[in-house]
Amino acid sequence: MFHLNKLYVVGIGPGAADEMTVRAMKALEASQVIAGYGVYTDLVRPLFPDKEYLETPMRKETERCRMAVDAAMSGKTVAMISSGDAGVYGMACLIYELAEGNKELDIEVVPGVTAALSGAAVLGAPLGHDFAIISLSDLLTPWEKIEKRLEMAAAADLCVAIYNPSSHKRADYLMKACDILLRHASPETVCGAVRNIAREGEEMHVMTLQELREYKADMFTTVFVGNSQTRVIDGRMVTPRGYTNA
Amino acid sequence: MFHLNKLYVVGIGPGAADEMTVRAMKALEASQVIAGYGVYTDLVRPLFPDKEYLETPMRKETERCRMAVDAAMSGKTVAMISSGDAGVYGMACLIYELAEGNKELDIEVVPGVTAALSGAAVLGAPLGHDFAIISLSDLLTPWEKIEKRLEMAAAADLCVAIYNPSSHKRADYLMKACDILLRHASPETVCGAVRNIAREGEEMHVMTLQELREYKADMFTTVFVGNSQTRVIDGRMVTPRGYTNA
Repeated sequence: MFHLNKLYVVGIGPGAADEMTVRAMKALEASQVIAGYGVYTDLVRPLFPDKEYLETPMRKETERCRMAVDAAMSGKTVAMISSGDAGVYGMACLIYELAEGNKELDIEVVPGVTAALSGAAVLGAPLGHDFAIISLSDLLTPWEKIEKRLEMAAAADLCVAIYNPSSHKRADYLMKACDILLRHASPETVCGAVRNIAREGEEMHVMTLQELREYKADMFTTVFVGNSQTRVIDGRMVTPRGYTNA
Repeated sequence: MFHLNKLYVVGIGPGAADEMTVRAMKALEASQVIAGYGVYTDLVRPLFPDKEYLETPMRKETERCRMAVDAAMSGKTVAMISSGDAGVYGMACLIYELAEGNKELDIEVVPGVTAALSGAAVLGAPLGHDFAIISLSDLLTPWEKIEKRLEMAAAADLCVAIYNPSSHKRADYLMKACDILLRHASPETVCGAVRNIAREGEEMHVMTLQELREYKADMFTTVFVGNSQTRVIDGRMVTPRGYTNA
């Protein structure tokens, strides 16, 4: 019988084990090897202590994915894990790119709860209508492109979930992003930020776009910008779809 | 001791029970009453046959949510379920609106895997970079607003996941949407469609934006439009983040 080498690409959700889907759990259980960035493998290791782990430091994405592909090609069932969803700024694309033309590899992407969804649930319901997810990381994307996307999103009155709002090298990027959004959006637009989603020290803040401009986000923060209809209900950030007007 | 009435608002994912998070499972287990649109309650009933069920037909969203709030206020622990994520065109916003000012109700939103993520995993990795989620339903949103959002998304070279691409009354909306996207995007832009995600009869198709214009989507279809970098790799739709160029 022809044997296909199995490689799962698994989104493990925001952090806590309970935020993983049952399908993700089963994929990890079915795997002999779990590959990923050390922070994420540390999250699943207590659940699956007897697996073989392949870890790489941050920013070694290509090496990490190549290790996972090689391990799968050696005949082992492998799960390559990402936080959140494996397809949203995750490793799924890179796995497909590295495995291009490889007919002996069976790649299965297992979706997960990305930070836009898990962070939104902490804030209330900020993404109840059309929205965009935009990363402020310009490591792999020209800043001009990010700027254009922010501007168009605000012009279209889309809610926005902002990933990677800040880092040591990009301390003022969130402020720059707010200034672009303010070209079209009101300074009173309801915004929110969630830090350490589904992990120890989880915290959320609701504020205006003007206040977000001064907010000190870090790399564990996901930021939410409302649309013109977003409002604060009992301390939560809520974007109505319009049922109560219908 | 002061007793808060508990109302979970739970995203159950695309359909199959395995696509639910462990946290969603536990919320349903902890509830005495499960409320929702009949199609969704039918999905969870086999898992939790002994619960009390509150069901309403489609388009009775406000009544459905009010029933759930009332049941929780009567002292029962209630789970209001949505397919996908409860905050993405789901019931979470409406629950917050209906419960405004109610200090005796403890609302907890439990996030889930929305169709953009579950459909993307079937297609490969179409949402590997910044993207927008836009619904073509103009029941609660003026068409001009939807049109503007599509146009701005294409102008910003965002990938787009299109929800509610079609219905009986709106048979030509996807074609109209493609025409708007084509003002900025190439007719060769890689697109995809997934039908019956994580359910019986799941199918996916990869095509160009020009072909998508003629595609017959139904209400069980989620549509994906790539950005200028999206390509087909071994039959899958993949939007690279750029690691392999870095």
